[in-house]
Amino acid sequence: MTAAVAETIDAFHRGLFYVVQPKGRGHRSGMDAMLLSALVDDDRPIRVADLGAGAGAAGLAVASRLPAAEVVLFERSQEMAGYARRSVLLPENDRMAARVTVVEADVTLKARLRKDAGLVDESFHHVIMNPPFNDAGDRRTPDALKAEAHAMTEGLFESWVRTAGAIMIPGGQLSLIARPESIAEIIDACGRRFGGIEVTAIHPRDGENAVRVLVTAVKGSRARLSLRAPLVMHEEGTHKFSSLVDDLNNGRAAYARR
Amino acid sequence: MTAAVAETIDAFHRGLFYVVQPKGRGHRSGMDAMLLSALVDDDRPIRVADLGAGAGAAGLAVASRLPAAEVVLFERSQEMAGYARRSVLLPENDRMAARVTVVEADVTLKARLRKDAGLVDESFHHVIMNPPFNDAGDRRTPDALKAEAHAMTEGLFESWVRTAGAIMIPGGQLSLIARPESIAEIIDACGRRFGGIEVTAIHPRDGENAVRVLVTAVKGSRARLSLRAPLVMHEEGTHKFSSLVDDLNNGRAAYARR
Repeated sequence: MTAAVAETIDAFHRGLFYVVQPKGRGHRSGMDAMLLSALVDDDRPIRVADLGAGAGAAGLAVASRLPAAEVVLFERSQEMAGYARRSVLLPENDRMAARVTVVEADVTLKARLRKDAGLVDESFHHVIMNPPFNDAGDRRTPDALKAEAHAMTEGLFESWVRTAGAIMIPGGQLSLIARPESIAEIIDACGRRFGGIEVTAIHPRDGENAVRVLVTAVKGSRARLSLRAPLVMHEEGTHKFSSLVDDLNNGRAAYARR
Repeated sequence: MTAAVAETIDAFHRGLFYVVQPKGRGHRSGMDAMLLSALVDDDRPIRVADLGAGAGAAGLAVASRLPAAEVVLFERSQEMAGYARRSVLLPENDRMAARVTVVEADVTLKARLRKDAGLVDESFHHVIMNPPFNDAGDRRTPDALKAEAHAMTEGLFESWVRTAGAIMIPGGQLSLIARPESIAEIIDACGRRFGGIEVTAIHPRDGENAVRVLVTAVKGSRARLSLRAPLVMHEEGTHKFSSLVDDLNNGRAAYARR
């Protein structure tokens, strides 16, 4: 047997763009990346940083929906950055390839090293992130590439949000998707850098616990946190997505701040 | 004009018990206290501490709904503790008067002073609290009694939750109601003392931001936080409470942990 690297080319936004992803290993993007990208609601010519971009699904989704957006995909793993570059270069993604750049960089770098890695101070209007997570309770994943994507380090949000605050213009918007149990760590990381935090819980169905939270915040804002009406993914008694969730997932709508 | 202290005697749980409260000054209890009391879902002979009990509405609501519960109302303000004592002694509250005690004590005391004030280590099964809050943004309240009830001090949750953790048996339950913007401070205060945190947002109506959060946690638990399905107070297009909220508000149901 020859050692073949299995991969797939997956359609998002009902075929409006595609992403090359490793198959059976590494983090595979899906709905989380699409919901994250929906948080960027800005038609102006903006610069958007996707921190920990993986194969590029969330950042490409922003570039696909917002024709004036330039997107930089920052990814630490050489291998995943390679997938991101190949994703950008797919012929199917031609209309946005000129607006999307891939930078291999560790988003937890500080000061001069961060700047040298391309994470330049006050150079983005939006920063999006879907930080890796893992549980002490989960079985150790045997897959090193996936383990890297899912490794939840102590202080992870602190270091990622610090970088987001640094590279964003005043008034810029941070957007992220995470698990509900991370909510205090996220708010603490926002600290005095960000205000106007808006949290939206995502529940699979009415009456069920949330499985994700969407969080946005504005650099330098003093407004207080709000806990918005939740999103319920599935309509009562069906496997279909609710129409709003389906629109967000397929790039037909943005999830605007209040 | 003589200086008369205006007060009212208010019915709760549709007349099942009453509370004497100052009128036009001080903190007046209402729905928050009733929702808080609904978090205690325990038919055993339990001891319940109400920290910062004010005139006693939440603690009396627990005693009213749970006939095996003994309740101690801890209140720092001499004047409010006086209202609490008079509430307990109302003839209408006769059936629970023997199970409710009022203790004038500052719940932020530590160590020996705390114990001497009656806040004895590992002596309660449940601790409930509706900690005071105020905004820098709100107009200063001209009423000293109300100001005391609403004063949000830096580290308030930390000191209140520390006391709750100390006076509760292992496996005991903390229950509180607070504003959404306090969520990170509450979770941080729970720290390693409490786990299995369950957060429920309360929204006035579908689509509106939450105005309160209900939080429960278990002393010594290692379970992770869950964000439960929200409670929506008002049914679509009416001023009526939803039937669950009405039941919680009127002592006809408890809001059980999952």
